[in-house]
Amino acid sequence: MTKISVSIVNVTSYSGLELLRLLSQHPHFEVKSVTARSAAGQRLYDVFPQFCAGLKRHGGISSGFDPALVITNEPDKVDLAFVCLPHAAAAASVVSLLERGTKVIDLSADFRLRDAAVYQEWYKLAHPAPALLETAAYGLCERYRERIAVATLVANPGCYATAAILGLMPAVAARVIGTDLIIDAKSGLSGAGRSPTLSTHYAEANEDVCAYSLSGHRHLPEISQELMAAALAEGNPLNQPPRITFIPHLVPMTRGLLATCYADLQQDAQGHVLTGAEVRELYETYYAGEPFVHIVDQPPHTKWTYGSNNCFIYPTVDTRTGRLVVISCLDNLVKGASGQAIQNANRLYGLPETCGLSPMSINP
Amino acid sequence: MTKISVSIVNVTSYSGLELLRLLSQHPHFEVKSVTARSAAGQRLYDVFPQFCAGLKRHGGISSGFDPALVITNEPDKVDLAFVCLPHAAAAASVVSLLERGTKVIDLSADFRLRDAAVYQEWYKLAHPAPALLETAAYGLCERYRERIAVATLVANPGCYATAAILGLMPAVAARVIGTDLIIDAKSGLSGAGRSPTLSTHYAEANEDVCAYSLSGHRHLPEISQELMAAALAEGNPLNQPPRITFIPHLVPMTRGLLATCYADLQQDAQGHVLTGAEVRELYETYYAGEPFVHIVDQPPHTKWTYGSNNCFIYPTVDTRTGRLVVISCLDNLVKGASGQAIQNANRLYGLPETCGLSPMSINP
Amino acid sequence: MTKISVSIVNVTSYSGLELLRLLSQHPHFEVKSVTARSAAGQRLYDVFPQFCAGLKRHGGISSGFDPALVITNEPDKVDLAFVCLPHAAAAASVVSLLERGTKVIDLSADFRLRDAAVYQEWYKLAHPAPALLETAAYGLCERYRERIAVATLVANPGCYATAAILGLMPAVAARVIGTDLIIDAKSGLSGAGRSPTLSTHYAEANEDVCAYSLSGHRHLPEISQELMAAALAEGNPLNQPPRITFIPHLVPMTRGLLATCYADLQQDAQGHVLTGAEVRELYETYYAGEPFVHIVDQPPHTKWTYGSNNCFIYPTVDTRTGRLVVISCLDNLVKGASGQAIQNANRLYGLPETCGLSPMSINP
Amino acid sequence: MTKISVSIVNVTSYSGLELLRLLSQHPHFEVKSVTARSAAGQRLYDVFPQFCAGLKRHGGISSGFDPALVITNEPDKVDLAFVCLPHAAAAASVVSLLERGTKVIDLSADFRLRDAAVYQEWYKLAHPAPALLETAAYGLCERYRERIAVATLVANPGCYATAAILGLMPAVAARVIGTDLIIDAKSGLSGAGRSPTLSTHYAEANEDVCAYSLSGHRHLPEISQELMAAALAEGNPLNQPPRITFIPHLVPMTRGLLATCYADLQQDAQGHVLTGAEVRELYETYYAGEPFVHIVDQPPHTKWTYGSNNCFIYPTVDTRTGRLVVISCLDNLVKGASGQAIQNANRLYGLPETCGLSPMSINP
Repeated sequence: MTKISVSIVNVTSYSGLELLRLLSQHPHFEVKSVTARSAAGQRLYDVFPQFCAGLKRHGGISSGFDPALVITNEPDKVDLAFVCLPHAAAAASVVSLLERGTKVIDLSADFRLRDAAVYQEWYKLAHPAPALLETAAYGLCERYRERIAVATLVANPGCYATAAILGLMPAVAARVIGTDLIIDAKSGLSGAGRSPTLSTHYAEANEDVCAYSLSGHRHLPEISQELMAAALAEGNPLNQPPRITFIPHLVPMTRGLLATCYADLQQDAQGHVLTGAEVRELYETYYAGEPFVHIVDQPPHTKWTYGSNNCFIYPTVDTRTGRLVVISCLDNLVKGASGQAIQNANRLYGLPETCGLSPMSINP
Repeated sequence: MTKISVSIVNVTSYSGLELLRLLSQHPHFEVKSVTARSAAGQRLYDVFPQFCAGLKRHGGISSGFDPALVITNEPDKVDLAFVCLPHAAAAASVVSLLERGTKVIDLSADFRLRDAAVYQEWYKLAHPAPALLETAAYGLCERYRERIAVATLVANPGCYATAAILGLMPAVAARVIGTDLIIDAKSGLSGAGRSPTLSTHYAEANEDVCAYSLSGHRHLPEISQELMAAALAEGNPLNQPPRITFIPHLVPMTRGLLATCYADLQQDAQGHVLTGAEVRELYETYYAGEPFVHIVDQPPHTKWTYGSNNCFIYPTVDTRTGRLVVISCLDNLVKGASGQAIQNANRLYGLPETCGLSPMSINP
Repeated sequence: MTKISVSIVNVTSYSGLELLRLLSQHPHFEVKSVTARSAAGQRLYDVFPQFCAGLKRHGGISSGFDPALVITNEPDKVDLAFVCLPHAAAAASVVSLLERGTKVIDLSADFRLRDAAVYQEWYKLAHPAPALLETAAYGLCERYRERIAVATLVANPGCYATAAILGLMPAVAARVIGTDLIIDAKSGLSGAGRSPTLSTHYAEANEDVCAYSLSGHRHLPEISQELMAAALAEGNPLNQPPRITFIPHLVPMTRGLLATCYADLQQDAQGHVLTGAEVRELYETYYAGEPFVHIVDQPPHTKWTYGSNNCFIYPTVDTRTGRLVVISCLDNLVKGASGQAIQNANRLYGLPETCGLSPMSINP
Repeated sequence: MTKISVSIVNVTSYSGLELLRLLSQHPHFEVKSVTARSAAGQRLYDVFPQFCAGLKRHGGISSGFDPALVITNEPDKVDLAFVCLPHAAAAASVVSLLERGTKVIDLSADFRLRDAAVYQEWYKLAHPAPALLETAAYGLCERYRERIAVATLVANPGCYATAAILGLMPAVAARVIGTDLIIDAKSGLSGAGRSPTLSTHYAEANEDVCAYSLSGHRHLPEISQELMAAALAEGNPLNQPPRITFIPHLVPMTRGLLATCYADLQQDAQGHVLTGAEVRELYETYYAGEPFVHIVDQPPHTKWTYGSNNCFIYPTVDTRTGRLVVISCLDNLVKGASGQAIQNANRLYGLPETCGLSPMSINP
């Protein structure tokens, strides 16, 4: 089978680098083009010396890419591009890629929100390509499997959004909880990107926990949009958007993201409030057959996900208060970014979603 | 002035070790006796080689203690004992210390709950010394300053409880929020104690975040009791206990504890809902003059508290939802344990609460 | 092709767990049996909840193993066993496995030293199976590729030994350095195993560096033996064993091992002392074609090796002193243990050494 | 007693910040002026929010400084200035401070080397103030106690230099070892300063060890100079400079520095080679009475020094090879920088060297 040629736009970002790692093990995609403004003209191994010349073997680093690939300003013509640019810059790149017939998985936020006005509210600029908003599929296979399969543009979800949506969607869609939602999330520092800042400086971030974006993190409208859509899809439309407080925190680790979600259980039409066992069954049914979402029977550890595309979810009822507490965790760079992007790419090309994605995390 | 003689019962615990550090800088207390069953007969520097013989200088390690002190099974006769034993064992020790006229700061949970039935519910054993429950003062100076000053037994609060109570008390007491409370807390691993276990094994705990005690952490009844008491003290008795969901998490750092607290703002008697600025003013007024509680205007970092007795609190209103979010952080071994114990000891002896407690944390 | 059936003896060790991870991606080996005294009767997912039942997909967790596999006391009959027991216990297991015709990769130290007297000196007990010492191949493919291919018992090298031998072998064998060798090694904490101890307790090991085993670490005789053998193989026998000082250190990270090696350059037969460029050429030639050993032109980072079987080596001359300094690094659980074990297993079965071993590390 | 007024020049550096912490506990110095080009006009609590306004108590943050102090471009007139600028910039500041009669502790490298030519060789620029080189005292109290007491300019030693010199000086000065010296040092990341870079970015530096400055670290000539001086002072002049290879490494922790030093024992005039016990006695004698240097009988941990001005030294003989191995460790920001600076300042003003410097580290 001929390989599908792939470009990584902004390969020097962490999601770009993680795509390289994951694609190097993929049997059907081949990285033929990599871009990065700041590193154009250099070879991959100049920027990432761990891909040293000596590492090339078996006709390439595994079969996935050549470590001597020259980084360019603009992507070459390929079948599929993964765009790892910041928002706004991403949209510009996506437009030009689509125009020349390249399919796109966009890892930025530019095409996640369906409503250009909401985008403008949260990103403080007019949407750069509103016409594409309808075309774009939100890249959460657990919800939009069919739509993604026929898309040309996939908007890869945010890391926090993925954890929160997967964690809350079954309960919201079934209306077994109210719409007052609290999401307290903890993320490792790779989520803050590869550009050095004082707050990601080792001596500052080590031995520290802090909350940030208390006036509103940009993954919030994404979570709201998708929870509403999920409820609608189940025939349980919400009367109004959920009332979400979402507070992200940085914790001193490189990878991993854990969302602790809180909501009041509510009576269903029959006046019944779900027990813990029933909630668990609801979740297991909802995600039955999902290759990457796993309902577990104890609080999961982010370490269980290190380097893998898995998301572990632990729904439990705080019987003292009648609240549902859901713990959802994943690797922010894999299921929260590049692994999910490959899962989406697999859909685009009719491959099994698990293709090239090892189920095993690194432990310890 | 003659020094007040002090004993540390179970000095090989982390709170015991931290007491040694803090007391070494204290002008009026002198550690004359240290106990630890597992290390009896050894000298302090045998167990903690960092207190090597060579460290003795100026007639003692600073003026606080002699690193050659022999660890015993039972405390010598002293003026004041800090008890760092696990619950139940602590009560037994406290009883015998009080009987011989020693004042006690108990860092265990044994005398924190006023109701023996609640103790039994949460600790699964009949209270070992219920008669003392009325005598014991809950060692939160910010609330019980006067009571502590005349006590002979002080029950030092739990680390999570301290952060949560200080964070929520002003708002609960003023009834500006409802009684549906969610406390999502993150603690470093020293909070889990000094005994090695798989979950505190470096290779397991590093690069990991997890929630634990989802069926109910034992600091919860303490938080509930004290929030009710605070409301009552302000003339705003709660009709029923607050409905608290409290989920603690372990994060990969040694020290530091951050509690993120969520509650709905509610109308006061005049139908008014507080603005962010008003909430902030409420907090500043409540803690005006407190030497260790600081209301800050940005989300605080646990690193700000490293090694100090400070608690930083950031109250803010999520205007999108009308929720109050309060971030409260401290060093779990200082304000969350041994520093607060010394603050209480200072009260017992009529010293300024800040005596011997440096306001400076270690940064970076 | 029928899969080769494999057993992991003592799967609850970190090297056992790492074998599970790596074998799950191997096209020709299949884990059919796992043992662990302390966990016998449980299923893999009971001990490692990250392999939850839900993870089984595609007819097994990838193709490598079934997460529901029951852990037994003794290995079932398989083609090949990986023995991850402590020394002495390992030898007993190896003997019984060989007797029933199972090939063995022993990850313990029991069959690394060719001389039973040296074993007794360092391990303080008579060798449990001296007759096998001649049979066993030292599992360093870079040296014993041919011997391993025909072995039935492979003694997998120690983690420190692998880094040090690979780092020093080219220079010692070519006699371009003297035999006064200093090896200063730094290892992450997974090298200390999975059993909790005070020194591996998170709050003790975090933010700490220390040296240990200053009276002699057991990987030293292994290094000495193999450097002598390498020199002999090149026709440059040493007159006496090298004079090695080897000091290992623990550093606060989970994985990774870096050895900094020091030796004086010496004149060759022609009175020539190698320049930096010549040393580098010597190393590149020595390891030409090696799939896992890479000579790099800047000091390598342990992070470059995280999760991969690569070893990066940076040889350089300190021109101020005429000393050779070689930095050699690897992942102690992969090239330092389980990855190398699979490289050896591949040789045993005539597979490419790289089979099932991804060249990519996890970054960041 | 009137307080000695003090300025911290470049207070936004880590050594500047650490001076604030340490001086806040000092009974005789008072910080009256702080400078930082990049933060001029702001108050201390603007840059370091942990010194929030609320922290002011007891008429100042402890007695040491006012958190509302305005940061300026140039230091006010004070008795004593601590200069925390980079080299070259430091010299310019020192010259102008001395001219107006301020005593100076310079924490930069500008006045550590006595020979301007050596400075030029290593710092690649002509010395900015060579006339002051003779005036400056090298700020190692353990060697230059008397000279420092009468100095107006003290050159505070480098962090690596302090650990290495203290570790090797007794043996070199007594000529019980040869002059072939290897120093393998490991430092936490605060040693790299407070400016964010890719190599100190959390996600890069975490879980990583690497060597750096292999072509020559600038602390090397300092070590060489002082070891020669120490030998001369003991009447054992070296015929030529020692042959030192010094390789620093970064390890993933915030504070702490450990130097492992290697040298061959050699015969003394009587043909005697020291035993381990004799070496130990030599070290104990050499440092008898030193308040901050402690000879210990087991490998020390950097954690023992966290936040304190102590240096722990473990000298031992590798009997297998006849080598001396010395492990020396300290907190790079305290004994390796700001604590040592205060020790020097105490000398300058005739105070006990330990004044204001707690002997206790933070553990865990």
